[in-house]
Amino acid sequence: MITRADCAARDHRDPSSALRERFDLPKEVIYLDGNSLGPLPRSVRERLGEVVDRQWGQDLIRSWNVHGWIDLPLAVGAKIAPLIGADPDEVAVADSTSVDLFKLLAGSLALRPDRRTIVSERDNFPTDLYIADGLTRLRGDGFQVRAVGREEIDPIESALGPDVAVVMLTHVDYRSGALYDMAEVTERVHAAGALMLWDLSHSTGAVEVDLGAAGADLAVGCGYKYLNGGPGAPAFLYVARRHQQAIRSPLQGWLGHAAPFELSPDYRPADGIARFLCGTPPILSLAALDAALDLFAEVDLGALRTKSMALGQLFLELVEQECGGELEIACPRDAAHRGSQVALRHPEGYAVIQALIARGVIGDFRTPDVLRFGLAPLYLRFADVWDAVQHLKEVLTGREWDRPEHQQRAAVT
Amino acid sequence: MITRADCAARDHRDPSSALRERFDLPKEVIYLDGNSLGPLPRSVRERLGEVVDRQWGQDLIRSWNVHGWIDLPLAVGAKIAPLIGADPDEVAVADSTSVDLFKLLAGSLALRPDRRTIVSERDNFPTDLYIADGLTRLRGDGFQVRAVGREEIDPIESALGPDVAVVMLTHVDYRSGALYDMAEVTERVHAAGALMLWDLSHSTGAVEVDLGAAGADLAVGCGYKYLNGGPGAPAFLYVARRHQQAIRSPLQGWLGHAAPFELSPDYRPADGIARFLCGTPPILSLAALDAALDLFAEVDLGALRTKSMALGQLFLELVEQECGGELEIACPRDAAHRGSQVALRHPEGYAVIQALIARGVIGDFRTPDVLRFGLAPLYLRFADVWDAVQHLKEVLTGREWDRPEHQQRAAVT
Repeated sequence: MITRADCAARDHRDPSSALRERFDLPKEVIYLDGNSLGPLPRSVRERLGEVVDRQWGQDLIRSWNVHGWIDLPLAVGAKIAPLIGADPDEVAVADSTSVDLFKLLAGSLALRPDRRTIVSERDNFPTDLYIADGLTRLRGDGFQVRAVGREEIDPIESALGPDVAVVMLTHVDYRSGALYDMAEVTERVHAAGALMLWDLSHSTGAVEVDLGAAGADLAVGCGYKYLNGGPGAPAFLYVARRHQQAIRSPLQGWLGHAAPFELSPDYRPADGIARFLCGTPPILSLAALDAALDLFAEVDLGALRTKSMALGQLFLELVEQECGGELEIACPRDAAHRGSQVALRHPEGYAVIQALIARGVIGDFRTPDVLRFGLAPLYLRFADVWDAVQHLKEVLTGREWDRPEHQQRAAVT
Repeated sequence: MITRADCAARDHRDPSSALRERFDLPKEVIYLDGNSLGPLPRSVRERLGEVVDRQWGQDLIRSWNVHGWIDLPLAVGAKIAPLIGADPDEVAVADSTSVDLFKLLAGSLALRPDRRTIVSERDNFPTDLYIADGLTRLRGDGFQVRAVGREEIDPIESALGPDVAVVMLTHVDYRSGALYDMAEVTERVHAAGALMLWDLSHSTGAVEVDLGAAGADLAVGCGYKYLNGGPGAPAFLYVARRHQQAIRSPLQGWLGHAAPFELSPDYRPADGIARFLCGTPPILSLAALDAALDLFAEVDLGALRTKSMALGQLFLELVEQECGGELEIACPRDAAHRGSQVALRHPEGYAVIQALIARGVIGDFRTPDVLRFGLAPLYLRFADVWDAVQHLKEVLTGREWDRPEHQQRAAVT
């Protein structure tokens, strides 16, 4: 039997527990949705005050130079690089994950001119599929997306063929938390002559990622989940150095020009990753992400992953110990094959999540019946996991999900 | 002879002079670069504090619902609509101007399937040309951009032909400030069977725009110039209601889906302007723009334009009165044909601007020799124009531009 005291003792021994104080987490809340929106790092509030009052307010247009706004897309990319096994000049921050996917998918198709198929997974996060569909519609002429079931991806050979230009997969599944073996999948994709594009939205900042060791070609990821960059923070994109001079973005905005301030009428892509910049970046949101990333400079990523796996293991063990058979475990049981989240199934999943939120335990519902709990190791405690599962137990035993106010659907879930 | 006292008297009579107090403008600065980056409205600082501390910090993920983050792209678009002669459901805020141009140009080509040429102006802001070039490269197969000189656009018939799908022009030229007659150009473009796309980046918030009366098809514009939305604020896009069900965005992000939270694997575009949303918006930057726009609710746009024209006329008259023949006027002299800016030419233009900036008069240099001064009527005073021209006179008579520190080029100009 695991007890709350056991959990508190683990927190006491956890060398990273002080990091929680860097966040402005509301009292009375157990936040298990950092994989949707990371909480507010205190440093971000200070930084935004500086950017708004001093930089924008007082120094105005000069801030592009004197406060380095113009350098932020690459400087913030370079901060993300060590989190994903990239070199600093292989990562840039720009636009949204969706827009960045479009750029990289379009670039991939041009790198494999004799191939016209994009392979992905039917259960991928929908925007990835929508973007690929929009691109192939625009190209017409035999370009297509083949979205296959996960069973066809493991092993992936069955999904590959001579027409496949690029395989686009999300490293950690947004619902189940299932984690691909990045190196193995990439190798198999390369063996079939295709490029590999990883969506790291649900990995970066909580799961160790080594794009370089895996030989991955391209990647995108999200700034507002485990990176805690704020709502709708800009996304990042990765292009392996070996591809950077051959690949172009179809979104040829002025900041991707070799000399943007020459204002020449002809487009000449910048050398390197900068060619994937497009329009003027949203500095307030970008500066927030920049400040949030400083937290990772203090962190051992291996230790963070170890803690993340332990939090997940504890969560599942406590569910089995405390909640009986009403819940089905809907994520891999082996932490090595799971991202930093757990998933459960309950026929009344939506209402269970609403009842938990009413108790201050903020998890997330994913259609049709998945309860999803993000376990961000930067700020979550083992005792929080204990308390969350106790709330879950009480919601189930008291049938709180059956109350009308929890059954009512909101616009955003 | 115009005197400073005349200018101060005009300020005294100006009913809009109180609006200046809504901005946090630094003392000792005359800011003539609001057409690059509008200054900080005080209301934005308050709003960002609320969004960061309360909404993100305390209410976390729930803010998408309870604080309406999810509605902001259309709600902010609806606030912009009256500034450009659009209905509230014809405007959305999303991404950057560059990305929005890509969406609308791609959509235009699909609306005119038998035509493959995009016409624009060689002196258009470069990102407009780059984006069109990137799109036609991606389409291949005879798609092309024809960028012509302004002399070929007035009258525009010579630039049109049976292969032209869409004409993309910037309403107010970013260098010279020259203003197109929107209704007349649109009518001529329509007569040739093409669509008309206006870039309103240098008009919105300072020049009256009536897309509806002009019968324009499509438009984009910038949030961080005269709208004062903050550095890199998201852009807006306009699609006339008559086109909304026929046109699609190639950037099919999840927020443009008819039911984004169903997370269906198949893309089904939202009805109306929402289909032009793409990824998750940068809420901090979007909220800043939202707060900045509230200023316009108090303003009579006709009176604003009248003041803008008067500021420009005063500037040019004072240059002629005070500065002799060293400067060439590089903008239309007739205010009716000019946006809210003036342009001058000087062989040492770059250094003249640097010398002015050192004196606290912030203007803008545009290659090769253009001094550009934005005259934002929301916060600029007639006496500021007097003072700015006095500084300009002293820079020229004292040959201050010849100092080494003013000759040295910075990265961003």
